[in-house]
Amino acid sequence: MIRKLNFSAGPAALPEEVLKQAQEEMLDWHGHGLSIMEMSHRSKEYVSVAEQAEQDLRDLMQIPDNYKVLFLQGGATTQFSMIPLNLLRDKKTADYINTGVWSKKAIAEAKRYCEVNIAATTEHNNFTSAPSQDELKLNLEAAYVHYTPNETIGGVEFDYIPETGDVPLVADMSSSILSRSIDVSRFGLIYAGAQKNIGPAGLTVVIVRDDLIGQMLPSAPTMFDYSIHAAADSMNNTPPTFGWYLAGLIFQWLKRQGGVEGMQMINQRKAEKLYAAIDRSAFYANPIAVANRSWMNVPFTLADANLDKRFIEEADQAGLLNLKGHRSVGGMRASIYNAVPESAVDALIAFMAEFEHKHS
Amino acid sequence: MIRKLNFSAGPAALPEEVLKQAQEEMLDWHGHGLSIMEMSHRSKEYVSVAEQAEQDLRDLMQIPDNYKVLFLQGGATTQFSMIPLNLLRDKKTADYINTGVWSKKAIAEAKRYCEVNIAATTEHNNFTSAPSQDELKLNLEAAYVHYTPNETIGGVEFDYIPETGDVPLVADMSSSILSRSIDVSRFGLIYAGAQKNIGPAGLTVVIVRDDLIGQMLPSAPTMFDYSIHAAADSMNNTPPTFGWYLAGLIFQWLKRQGGVEGMQMINQRKAEKLYAAIDRSAFYANPIAVANRSWMNVPFTLADANLDKRFIEEADQAGLLNLKGHRSVGGMRASIYNAVPESAVDALIAFMAEFEHKHS
Repeated sequence: MIRKLNFSAGPAALPEEVLKQAQEEMLDWHGHGLSIMEMSHRSKEYVSVAEQAEQDLRDLMQIPDNYKVLFLQGGATTQFSMIPLNLLRDKKTADYINTGVWSKKAIAEAKRYCEVNIAATTEHNNFTSAPSQDELKLNLEAAYVHYTPNETIGGVEFDYIPETGDVPLVADMSSSILSRSIDVSRFGLIYAGAQKNIGPAGLTVVIVRDDLIGQMLPSAPTMFDYSIHAAADSMNNTPPTFGWYLAGLIFQWLKRQGGVEGMQMINQRKAEKLYAAIDRSAFYANPIAVANRSWMNVPFTLADANLDKRFIEEADQAGLLNLKGHRSVGGMRASIYNAVPESAVDALIAFMAEFEHKHS
Repeated sequence: MIRKLNFSAGPAALPEEVLKQAQEEMLDWHGHGLSIMEMSHRSKEYVSVAEQAEQDLRDLMQIPDNYKVLFLQGGATTQFSMIPLNLLRDKKTADYINTGVWSKKAIAEAKRYCEVNIAATTEHNNFTSAPSQDELKLNLEAAYVHYTPNETIGGVEFDYIPETGDVPLVADMSSSILSRSIDVSRFGLIYAGAQKNIGPAGLTVVIVRDDLIGQMLPSAPTMFDYSIHAAADSMNNTPPTFGWYLAGLIFQWLKRQGGVEGMQMINQRKAEKLYAAIDRSAFYANPIAVANRSWMNVPFTLADANLDKRFIEEADQAGLLNLKGHRSVGGMRASIYNAVPESAVDALIAFMAEFEHKHS
């Protein structure tokens, strides 16, 4: 078996030692004679796994006690409707910051339920930066302010947490959760599809402040009610048990790496050396404003786009997988989430230098 | 490693050879150097896995071409709202047959969206039978007729498919799909949470006739629109990739067992011998009308309920797990889905005889 280096944007690389543990206990979890996948979610064994995962996530992110942590299904895309349906309450309008593809998707769905005020957009510069705090035109009457701290496709990341006063701040952290320390108390709601920085696809984590739940619009499906999931400890119906278990293994792995603080140092180093390699040469380019360059998703182009196909092919042969940029952007993209080791980034940088040497 | 015999109602036993295959390829799928969980759902490798799973399910159930097969998230509980939101169209009422806990849950959610006509109920006999065709009071103006072919908790199974004329028939087959041959063309929509007879929790299969989709009520979330999932081959957003893959392995395993026809013979034999063991003695009892006894979930009580705890303890010690009845019913329940081998049923029967001998 040769494990290759996987720069997929999601579903993405998982820590090898976590996969090995899941492999080892796949047919017989802790000597119980059955797979974790074959256990009732209400068994005391499974409940202990689920509770430990929640506690580990609370520890890692220092989540205050007045926040619920929910393990749901449906991906961030389901949250695009669940958020307005739960958080609008008696309000008619919500603020959205538009920084690219994922912001736009959230906005399109919110418009089906309320008036959307675009508090800021960087469409004018083709989403190559994040707006500054000064540029945000916030509405004091908004039910909430929604933003995308890291745009997976564009590779744009906020270098600050927006200040929104008493209006709850909502963040789609699918591609940046657990990548660096944040102050959860600054947020009303944080959500993340698991398949980038948490675990396998099919699990969605929602962290929501107590006072924001329990007032869902009456037309919405019962399964969209955060308060019902919260009251049932995310077991109103059968949860995605294997994904939740695997997320728990990853939280424990993160703790062994020094927690979010430890990962933050590694992630910063990984990103800085990759951007330095891009900037070092006119052969490669990244268009994003330096302060807003994503630590997680690093898009780059080749000066000669005719070499794109060749780059992908040779990278594949060298064991560097999934570097093709998103179809809407083109070029290359290296996603370097927590589970992508620094050595993989080093290998990519070496490959890029070699490729340049060969083809320039 | 000792694998025990698992009679869990769900998440439930999975075929051991499928778990072994998943275990073997967990870190390196088919020599590609990464886990199936680490692959983009849009990669050609993953798409081939997903398409093969769909084709195998179509083969197994002989699904006509004018039906879509969807691989979704959210469980049957999400379908309880998705069905009225999509199938009501210009109608104001739907027919529901009430045969127990799961029927009731579907009815409660439907009432939030339409007038529910209870076409039949067996509440008067404590849900110990299914109503006959003659007893169904169907409304010709109903948008659809919903029923639960097999009630997982009560252990009641329909011995026929209701005839509903031009009104589409909708079935929650979570606990009976793939357990016996059915004529899919008799149904408008079939749905099933995967965690009983298909695969791991977190995947929901929906089989829906083409003409019934594309008319969702405008207030519903976009992610509730069957037509959007159908148009995107269930990849409108990231699907639960591992669950879909594992379901595919199970479909291939089913084919190796002789398909649904082969499983049907085994399932009938398993159920008949277990009910025979219950009926043989006054020590055990099952209250369900003989024609409606479930092949999948076999609840039984001990004449002396004081022995219940002892039964569970001794069964556990003998390696027979998860026989405790649902908290709403009490007593015991043996769930004997496709993945529970006949030898496990034989072991249970032997244990029951021994327990009776010891304690009577």
